[in-house]
Amino acid sequence: MDCLFCKIINGDIPSYKIYEDEYTYAFLDIAKDAIGHTVVVSKKHVNNVLDADLETLAHVMEAISKISNHYVNECGFDGVNILNNSGVSAEQSIMHLHFHIIPRKNNDNMKVFPELHNCNEDLEETHKKLKM
Amino acid sequence: MDCLFCKIINGDIPSYKIYEDEYTYAFLDIAKDAIGHTVVVSKKHVNNVLDADLETLAHVMEAISKISNHYVNECGFDGVNILNNSGVSAEQSIMHLHFHIIPRKNNDNMKVFPELHNCNEDLEETHKKLKM
Repeated sequence: MDCLFCKIINGDIPSYKIYEDEYTYAFLDIAKDAIGHTVVVSKKHVNNVLDADLETLAHVMEAISKISNHYVNECGFDGVNILNNSGVSAEQSIMHLHFHIIPRKNNDNMKVFPELHNCNEDLEETHKKLKM
Repeated sequence: MDCLFCKIINGDIPSYKIYEDEYTYAFLDIAKDAIGHTVVVSKKHVNNVLDADLETLAHVMEAISKISNHYVNECGFDGVNILNNSGVSAEQSIMHLHFHIIPRKNNDNMKVFPELHNCNEDLEETHKKLKM
């Protein structure tokens, strides 16, 4: 399959591997936009959270938990942001399920959580449309 | 416990509830910064991904999957961003495990994934420090 992340998992494309188990593979993002920016992918090829089975999602969360704790408990970071884009509309560029871990330090002067504009949302109206 | 999200789960503080099951509770964020901005919390009080047990994380991921698919398959959205801040350093404000779902539409002109500055990272060096 012509998928960048499948090639990385298979070793056809080199990567800075951080962690690997039976179900997941994690490596450094080469964007160099945050020290330790890590990408965690499922070994199973699924597009994103929308088509992933629950077992795959649980495995990826387990890897995220392990890596995040490693970064905080053993590597000098204080926290992490965890980010996923599911769908082209949501800025997903590689169509293989992946989560970003951005390791954080106190007072690192980064702003990871988005600052969005006021959308004048009518919460009652949204609630009627979206509640399950 | 004096926790805002525990009070919302218990109904002591009203919320626009989107979804609830035995382990999780989801409601509209009142920030009005994105139509349908949703917060998914574990019913069990844990601080964040760093201290959450794997069962709790799997339950939260399951709820995220269900809600995201509902938004895309039944509510007219095209994708979702999923965001978690773990730790004060990572901009976490409420110390109770929660993930944000930002529903997205094609060409909605939002930018959710962070645009961070080049950090001049030496990937070899980072790899040596962080690999597991």
